[in-house]
Amino acid sequence: MGIDRTLIERRLDELYAIGAEPDGGAYRPLYGPAWATAVERVERWLKDAGLKTRRDAVGNLWGRVEGTDKGKSIVTGSHIDTVRRGGRLDGALGIVAGLTAVEALLKEKGKPRCTLEVVAICEEEGSRFRTNFWGSTAITGSIDQVPHDIAAAMRERGLDPQKVASAARDDIDTFVELHIEQGAVLESANRPLAIVSAIVGTAHLEVTVTGRPDHAGTTPMDMRRDALAGAAAMVQAVESIARSLGQPAVATVGKLAVEPDQINVVPGRVVFTMDLRHTELSGRGALEERIRSVCDTIGAERRLGLAMRTLQDKPPVAMHPEVRALLARAAQDCGVQATEMVSGAGHDAQILAARCKVGMLFVPSIGGRSHCPEEATNPEHLRLGTEVLARSLELLAY
Amino acid sequence: MGIDRTLIERRLDELYAIGAEPDGGAYRPLYGPAWATAVERVERWLKDAGLKTRRDAVGNLWGRVEGTDKGKSIVTGSHIDTVRRGGRLDGALGIVAGLTAVEALLKEKGKPRCTLEVVAICEEEGSRFRTNFWGSTAITGSIDQVPHDIAAAMRERGLDPQKVASAARDDIDTFVELHIEQGAVLESANRPLAIVSAIVGTAHLEVTVTGRPDHAGTTPMDMRRDALAGAAAMVQAVESIARSLGQPAVATVGKLAVEPDQINVVPGRVVFTMDLRHTELSGRGALEERIRSVCDTIGAERRLGLAMRTLQDKPPVAMHPEVRALLARAAQDCGVQATEMVSGAGHDAQILAARCKVGMLFVPSIGGRSHCPEEATNPEHLRLGTEVLARSLELLAY
Repeated sequence: MGIDRTLIERRLDELYAIGAEPDGGAYRPLYGPAWATAVERVERWLKDAGLKTRRDAVGNLWGRVEGTDKGKSIVTGSHIDTVRRGGRLDGALGIVAGLTAVEALLKEKGKPRCTLEVVAICEEEGSRFRTNFWGSTAITGSIDQVPHDIAAAMRERGLDPQKVASAARDDIDTFVELHIEQGAVLESANRPLAIVSAIVGTAHLEVTVTGRPDHAGTTPMDMRRDALAGAAAMVQAVESIARSLGQPAVATVGKLAVEPDQINVVPGRVVFTMDLRHTELSGRGALEERIRSVCDTIGAERRLGLAMRTLQDKPPVAMHPEVRALLARAAQDCGVQATEMVSGAGHDAQILAARCKVGMLFVPSIGGRSHCPEEATNPEHLRLGTEVLARSLELLAY
Repeated sequence: MGIDRTLIERRLDELYAIGAEPDGGAYRPLYGPAWATAVERVERWLKDAGLKTRRDAVGNLWGRVEGTDKGKSIVTGSHIDTVRRGGRLDGALGIVAGLTAVEALLKEKGKPRCTLEVVAICEEEGSRFRTNFWGSTAITGSIDQVPHDIAAAMRERGLDPQKVASAARDDIDTFVELHIEQGAVLESANRPLAIVSAIVGTAHLEVTVTGRPDHAGTTPMDMRRDALAGAAAMVQAVESIARSLGQPAVATVGKLAVEPDQINVVPGRVVFTMDLRHTELSGRGALEERIRSVCDTIGAERRLGLAMRTLQDKPPVAMHPEVRALLARAAQDCGVQATEMVSGAGHDAQILAARCKVGMLFVPSIGGRSHCPEEATNPEHLRLGTEVLARSLELLAY
């Protein structure tokens, strides 16, 4: 199929300019001005490509081509929000590739048998509020309550928080998404494309270590109960346990705060977070269990208080076997050497999997960089991914 | 000498009530309203005890009894500012004990031969601005420049920042101060009093560890350059090196900040501080050298950038041998079993040592606690310390 590489690049550039930050990167937080401008831009593109657009109750933007048969929709797309100082491709690629693929299909193959839709999902990143997967959660009809701050921001955008239930869809057959890998597995293996087999499960824990604040000059080393020295031993343990379990286990301490955080006071309290991931629920359980056990030992040895609480616990989600097979066939049809891999990052597909068949394609990230201005992919890989996506949609909808 | 224990307690209670914080402790930051109220209160006490008061250009409060001989002054006192949530005794004790001792001397021994002065030093703690030893630095005539924020606060208190040079004194013969130990050495040794032999030297370093921020889900453990995991190894090293060198070496990591400080991002940058102390310059040098070397190794092994800069470097200061001998004699005269010890904390005496003879007495801190609401000393130890201080002043001034 004829996929125009320069068109993809131009559209990505246009989106990246919306919400550009002074030090590089773009930031399009949910319901903010940059977010709204980006949604408008994509809406114009969808209309220009001949799709019928609408926005649902949470601000997801849908572009639709009615199929000749009655029946459920084939959907592609991604999220339009970004992290702070976000890159050019995360989310944006899935929208641009979906639009570009559907546009090419309409041009070359005409009207589809199944209804085809391109979606710009309003939020996935936790870009602004204490939520993520906001858009896909709405699509699955699983928003129980709209937090006050989100409701206020919705109203400012002319959206009615009372109506979020109306965003639910039960008429989607399959959702496929092209995304960047955000890691360096494909690059290291020198492969241009991957079919995602599963999305890892993620546990987020918060750990509070309580020692005793003491004068840094007058308290001999052996009389201290230093919360930071203890936390440092735990941070070391988190890293070494994940290493010893080996791939696909990963464990990260991303946040850490010290109290009283004074240069001349022995730290009395440290709060840090752990992000634990594994493709198997049992593997993640083993990772968490070993980390908890070592932290307990460190706490006891150092006479430190230790409290852990779970902030989030998302199980691993397998991609649908039929969709995986179809994506593999599409790659083969395009002459692409695709591999299968697990996604270490979360994606809307893991939420949508509750209501429809889901599948994902990954293209390589240069240097494995993501969530930063350096986020980049070889333009030929972007074109190739879009071509395989188009072929997949053709197999599904024509 | 008749030292009234209840009078000491009452005065300490009165001062502690000034700047009382809702969760316990008192906070009297330099030039703030609580600070000003406390200075007024002490001024009234000094006047009531028959001393002639004046405030110098930086707000140090002096109470003076003219001696019958011409000559330099014998000075006692301490600082009136406190840390946040400070305790009842740090600084306050030296002022209350000095006043109570001089009051008793005047009553029992009459007019002194040498001029006797009690000083409430305006600042020692770094309680508000990026400075400490502000009051004693002014007394030694060593303030080169008044930072803008301090100048503004001085003006609000009616002090002229242009005139700080006039606070310099070259007519002090000896400065003696009673202070709490702020550690648990005396309590552990079951001694009621110590004569300070030296004040440790303190080096403050800031360490910046630079790794690479990466996605916590998509970056395998062996591809990471995790700044926090590296910093944690360094924090561990700081502790174990100080332990292995043994007393009086102490090393503390008191502040630590992570960037970007997100739960799902591998830390790209960590900045932390080190507080290194030893009574011998060579000992502190060895401590610093070993820590620097191990941090270099950790940084290199983990492919992390490492930058260290010195924020402060204060050498150890010995107390004057004549004053130490005199304090020992005074303790003996009062029938007290005093010991000699090194101060792990900094004190104004280390600054004043540049211009006059200095000496310090320590009374025990219960549980070694200080810089917190739990800061406490047995009232009998407070009385005893004040009595020895009074006897010392008698030996010096009569």
